[in-house]
Amino acid sequence: MRLCRYQQRDSVQVGFYDEKSIISLAAAATAYGQGTHERLPIPVGDSLIDLLPNGKHAEAAQKLFDWVAKNESMLPANARVETDKVQLLVPIARPNKLLLLAGNYNSHIQEGGGIATERAETFPYVFMKPPSTTLADPGKPVFVPKVSANNVDWECELAIVIGKGGKHITEANALQHVAGYTVVNDISDRKFKPNPGRKERKNDSFFDWLHGKWHDSFCPCGPCVVSAATVPDPQKLKMKLTVNGKVWQDASTAQQIFSVAATIAFISDIVTLEPGDIIATGTPAGVGNTSQTYLHAGDKVEAWIENIGTLVSPIKDEA
Amino acid sequence: MRLCRYQQRDSVQVGFYDEKSIISLAAAATAYGQGTHERLPIPVGDSLIDLLPNGKHAEAAQKLFDWVAKNESMLPANARVETDKVQLLVPIARPNKLLLLAGNYNSHIQEGGGIATERAETFPYVFMKPPSTTLADPGKPVFVPKVSANNVDWECELAIVIGKGGKHITEANALQHVAGYTVVNDISDRKFKPNPGRKERKNDSFFDWLHGKWHDSFCPCGPCVVSAATVPDPQKLKMKLTVNGKVWQDASTAQQIFSVAATIAFISDIVTLEPGDIIATGTPAGVGNTSQTYLHAGDKVEAWIENIGTLVSPIKDEA
Repeated sequence: MRLCRYQQRDSVQVGFYDEKSIISLAAAATAYGQGTHERLPIPVGDSLIDLLPNGKHAEAAQKLFDWVAKNESMLPANARVETDKVQLLVPIARPNKLLLLAGNYNSHIQEGGGIATERAETFPYVFMKPPSTTLADPGKPVFVPKVSANNVDWECELAIVIGKGGKHITEANALQHVAGYTVVNDISDRKFKPNPGRKERKNDSFFDWLHGKWHDSFCPCGPCVVSAATVPDPQKLKMKLTVNGKVWQDASTAQQIFSVAATIAFISDIVTLEPGDIIATGTPAGVGNTSQTYLHAGDKVEAWIENIGTLVSPIKDEA
Repeated sequence: MRLCRYQQRDSVQVGFYDEKSIISLAAAATAYGQGTHERLPIPVGDSLIDLLPNGKHAEAAQKLFDWVAKNESMLPANARVETDKVQLLVPIARPNKLLLLAGNYNSHIQEGGGIATERAETFPYVFMKPPSTTLADPGKPVFVPKVSANNVDWECELAIVIGKGGKHITEANALQHVAGYTVVNDISDRKFKPNPGRKERKNDSFFDWLHGKWHDSFCPCGPCVVSAATVPDPQKLKMKLTVNGKVWQDASTAQQIFSVAATIAFISDIVTLEPGDIIATGTPAGVGNTSQTYLHAGDKVEAWIENIGTLVSPIKDEA
């Protein structure tokens, strides 16, 4: 089951997502009521969290999804809209936290001890982006910032959506806290360097890196959230990122050093996780920076993850 | 004019703040209506932003404050509550962003070129804390984390509350975007070090520092917001922090390398600022880490800034 938020005329709707068409949950629930003479407690709001594992309407949403699959003919024509005719929205409207990992992929699984050794010798590098100004809707532009015009890079990442919050969550229990998964494109400004006349201090390069993650629109997210119930093993998802059709990243979440569960456990030892929190789990090899290739106005980036879908981001210059 | 949010029985109220007593804005507005036969458009919600400079009810709030000062006898007895009888709340309920500066004070103003030289040679180091889990109400505990028990430090900081958002705000215009000022105690876990068996990487110490800023309750904030209209020059505010009555920080915002205005200008070149965003502007000399002095359960920290007030934080162990 994949759920999305989308704008239809003046209202924000929740729908069952598919590449070709989206089915309005509200309309499907009405059809279900007429077809079964039973009422499903599907809320009218625009939050996905209640409809996903750990949410109070999770069972009803899954039941409705299963019913729709078998009774498509009972849906009225206006229950379905073509996906490319609506504006998709960031699936979580206002997450309290937008956390991301730097690194976290091992491209040489079989060499030198591989993931287990790398995990034993390191810890996850976690950072934050401001959610209200960096999250960009699917299909909406990423803006090349005025203050740093030629260094914008991509990073396709599997993102966890937290369903049940908690502190000190164990790795063994961690997946029970997941509502679902979405795609994040962790955009970076690789060479942001304020005050070029500065005298270099030890931490300058770190803060340049950190600030370069924060520009407006630098966190496209979507197109939907796949229910955690549909993804029994998040460490087996293929992922691919293309720029203007050329493949730059082609990997699998099997290459993650810290798995989804380990990442949740690590972070929840520091901060209390809350429903709706988004955690992007790092990116594999194939970013532009390695070959000094950057994004420019007119480019089109497509970040795809198996079972979720494709997050499209056109590039524009900041006005 | 100082405004605060506070909990009274089951409801959240906005009040005119004073160390001894708080006057309910709702009750004062009622008294104003009875006294003047004129109705003031004071909203019933719990947001301070609308009542401060740039807010849509800023004039009404200031008018009410001035009227109350001259007509205290017209207030009913229940319009006033003793400050230490109510639970003060973080003045901004849900800021979109909680940004802080690392460093930013020069303790040798007159030596070696002083602030102007230091500013020309550097740039502000900005980081974020997760607002929903780090912001702690005035008087509520800061919890020493289980995962790092002996390294908790204080930092008294002047915090800007943004009233009018914007991007690429110039330093000359920056103060016009400020709603007011509050106090933040930027608590740090100075020695957070996950995975002690790790092989050190170049950026380990940086991420230890960053993660050590994020523990739950690590950003006490309050007790109130002083209106920007009451603080014509934010670079002339005395500040003091005590632990169990002993003075540890004793400084002035005159020692800031990047002024309030310069900080707003710098950050708004990267991210769009929004009403309610909080920016803590760094701390002066006198943190505990210099002498390896840390906070423990039973300690009481008081962070004071002139014109705003005292933010009290008892220290407790995480349960």
